[in-house]
Amino acid sequence: MIDFRPLLFVIGILLTTIAVIMCLPAIADGAVDNPDWQVFAASALITLSLGICLILGNRSDDFRFTIHQAFLLTTLSWLVIALFGSLPFMFSNLDLSFTDAFFEAMSGITTTGSTVITGLDFAPPGILLWRALLQWLGGIGIIVMAIAVLPMLRVGGMQLFHMESSDTSDKVMPRAAQIASGIGLIYVSLTLICGGALWLSGMSGFQAIAHAMTTIATGGFSTSDDSVGHFNSATIDAIITCFMILGSMPFVLYLQAVRGNVRQLVTDSQVLWFLSIAFMAVATLTVWQWLGNDVAFLEALRYVSFNSVSLMTGTGYSTADFGLWGGFAVSLLFFLMVVGGCAGSTTCGIKIFRFQVIYATTKAQIERLMQPHGVFTPYYNRKPIPPDVSESVMGFFFLFALAFTVLALGLSFLGLDFLTSMSGAASAIANVGPGMGEVIGPAGTFAALPDSAKWLLSCGMLIGRLELYTVLILFAPSFWRG
Amino acid sequence: MIDFRPLLFVIGILLTTIAVIMCLPAIADGAVDNPDWQVFAASALITLSLGICLILGNRSDDFRFTIHQAFLLTTLSWLVIALFGSLPFMFSNLDLSFTDAFFEAMSGITTTGSTVITGLDFAPPGILLWRALLQWLGGIGIIVMAIAVLPMLRVGGMQLFHMESSDTSDKVMPRAAQIASGIGLIYVSLTLICGGALWLSGMSGFQAIAHAMTTIATGGFSTSDDSVGHFNSATIDAIITCFMILGSMPFVLYLQAVRGNVRQLVTDSQVLWFLSIAFMAVATLTVWQWLGNDVAFLEALRYVSFNSVSLMTGTGYSTADFGLWGGFAVSLLFFLMVVGGCAGSTTCGIKIFRFQVIYATTKAQIERLMQPHGVFTPYYNRKPIPPDVSESVMGFFFLFALAFTVLALGLSFLGLDFLTSMSGAASAIANVGPGMGEVIGPAGTFAALPDSAKWLLSCGMLIGRLELYTVLILFAPSFWRG
Repeated sequence: MIDFRPLLFVIGILLTTIAVIMCLPAIADGAVDNPDWQVFAASALITLSLGICLILGNRSDDFRFTIHQAFLLTTLSWLVIALFGSLPFMFSNLDLSFTDAFFEAMSGITTTGSTVITGLDFAPPGILLWRALLQWLGGIGIIVMAIAVLPMLRVGGMQLFHMESSDTSDKVMPRAAQIASGIGLIYVSLTLICGGALWLSGMSGFQAIAHAMTTIATGGFSTSDDSVGHFNSATIDAIITCFMILGSMPFVLYLQAVRGNVRQLVTDSQVLWFLSIAFMAVATLTVWQWLGNDVAFLEALRYVSFNSVSLMTGTGYSTADFGLWGGFAVSLLFFLMVVGGCAGSTTCGIKIFRFQVIYATTKAQIERLMQPHGVFTPYYNRKPIPPDVSESVMGFFFLFALAFTVLALGLSFLGLDFLTSMSGAASAIANVGPGMGEVIGPAGTFAALPDSAKWLLSCGMLIGRLELYTVLILFAPSFWRG
Repeated sequence: MIDFRPLLFVIGILLTTIAVIMCLPAIADGAVDNPDWQVFAASALITLSLGICLILGNRSDDFRFTIHQAFLLTTLSWLVIALFGSLPFMFSNLDLSFTDAFFEAMSGITTTGSTVITGLDFAPPGILLWRALLQWLGGIGIIVMAIAVLPMLRVGGMQLFHMESSDTSDKVMPRAAQIASGIGLIYVSLTLICGGALWLSGMSGFQAIAHAMTTIATGGFSTSDDSVGHFNSATIDAIITCFMILGSMPFVLYLQAVRGNVRQLVTDSQVLWFLSIAFMAVATLTVWQWLGNDVAFLEALRYVSFNSVSLMTGTGYSTADFGLWGGFAVSLLFFLMVVGGCAGSTTCGIKIFRFQVIYATTKAQIERLMQPHGVFTPYYNRKPIPPDVSESVMGFFFLFALAFTVLALGLSFLGLDFLTSMSGAASAIANVGPGMGEVIGPAGTFAALPDSAKWLLSCGMLIGRLELYTVLILFAPSFWRG
């Protein structure tokens, strides 16, 4: 039997933290005399009470978790934060149902960015700040998890990054807590720089900080129904494009760069592949828009680079309805959505290193077909890939396709059309945000979907965010046996 | 350098055989006094001449091919047959361009069943017979290849079947040639039984034999523009459904059954999985049509079972426009298209055993996540799966997704819409036949597509039919080096 007490203790700490953070939107609402501050005060009170109860009732000094406990804690944490994060949405005068509130909170904490709320431009600042905070916390949460937890759990090839950081010749810093605080500092700094740049480019201070938080987290919640398109500024588009890219690269490498080892950052093969894929996609679609659809070159470049990077990194902002760019653009963006950014960043999706591992493994396989007795070792970042990593990555790829299939079938069963089902499923699992088509495309919202579809999509976001294995393992009967 | 002479010799033999077979449609046309017999006579003459030249110019007694030669020969054979198989289409008064003729021949020999020809109901018997013959030959060709060639080349996990047949306790027959002739006999017998049953159910003798050939080959070319829907007979639908299923099971097991070992056939895990998946798909869609779309139960069962089995086995006949069944049916049938039947049958697609191998491998992986020091061996058909088979199957899965992505992007680049691009790509690589949507759906043909799209699709059919690796390896630079 799994001992739940230490788990409940940690969740108590999490809830207490969340309760404290809920005071920020309360202050924001209070500052403009909006009665909505009570919504956050009430939510904070509920969350705090339960948090303290859990802490007191399950006090423990022993933080050595078993693997089973670690898996369970990971999934439970995100679930509980989404649950309590949805309280303000339910209590506010937006009048969201529990389903809608949970969907919005899950979309926030997983940095997906799908929304069911319309009328953002006139929403109270507290709610807007809460949406941004959820994504910002989700972003740093996943980075820390990708460095500290997932490699230990060995899910989907993430052990590759465990070995790297525990390799003595390549050691970043001696202790995990130090790494985490270093990365936290970088995360905060990048957010402040992004916010400052956006403020200088014409956003209000509030808009700037809200967008900075959801940009660096590659989340995609905006303060306007028209997303970033609302500001209609090439400068703002360019700034956000840059910071979405920065948010999609391994934060450990930033830490090394700050400590003087810039070489690691500029020679990392995952970073190079990521930038190359993004560049090729932008170049192809820009030419397509320019020559194929007769859009002026600079205009094509501006809108294509912003929206392609936004979808590939899973941010989900939009400045144009790319559904109108024609079949090729829709298809390319659809596939781009599942690619994602680098491991150890705030992005989701399959992630670049997995494509590299699969490519190297398949290439070695093909060499072996030609010379059955030869020895061919696949390499990642100039190091041999251990067989269990190859297998794990390939298993991830299969589970991703399986989860996508089940989710798309489920959505279509609930009455959604082919394009909406397919793109909705991909968007949820890859934590992108918008889908394709009229309903959930960049010009629409998820509000019109049936409740059951919203629950399915919420599950998809959670499963995708936690690298599939972490959640799916809980459904293995043997997990609950011995 | 690769020695091409023995390859050209074998291709010479193949061409001579094809030339002889071309006389059958000539006879069919001659019998009804249709001048089209000259088309086949001319095609046969050209093919025969080149075949004899190749044989005489490259005579050889040495049939021991290197692996490089074997890979090259496999791809070349199918390419050359498609090329010469297209001659009658070009010469006939159907007035097909070279592109259209090649597309039709490639669709035939790969047992895909996509067509560019309309007016089949009034076409001369020779052309109809030639289309059926191409598929019938393609069907037996792929079975023999799956038993004799692919396991040796170790592509995509097919080595699993090599080991099985060379395992002494499980030996079917001592020599490959004997196995091949035994399976050929079964193939002919099943065709005759199917033809007889169709004839007794009201088809003309010619229609019966043509449909029997394309049914057992899971090919899907029909003698009518309305496909099997033309006959509007529940009996015919039922017979064809049964024989499509029979064509999708491992023919080696039939051989064993005929020799008294029926147990192997009914306990084979691939067969059981295949039948279960087909049954579940049919049951789900029947209920969907019955309760969701208010179709009478028996009518729903009839149309759903025929069309689902036709798509899953990659046959591609249709008796209804399933595009009108709603988003869920379209999505489910879309995913079903790539599943395919059993290895060692006439079907294409990913194939059941690969799903079993991936499932078992991923399951073992998940067990290992929970107990990092435990030993978990994945099993297929009650035997442990060697690691290289798991890797090979997972590589296949990745290449399938990659080929699908490239093809779908290519098609959308040429101007096709999202649904047409996606389903066209899946249909070609899985050798299904029809796609989804108005243009290439069951009610349409591929005639209206641009030439470039037809060439892309032809490539997709060939790559899919030869299990991806066999063709893609030729594009590895190292293949052509030493």
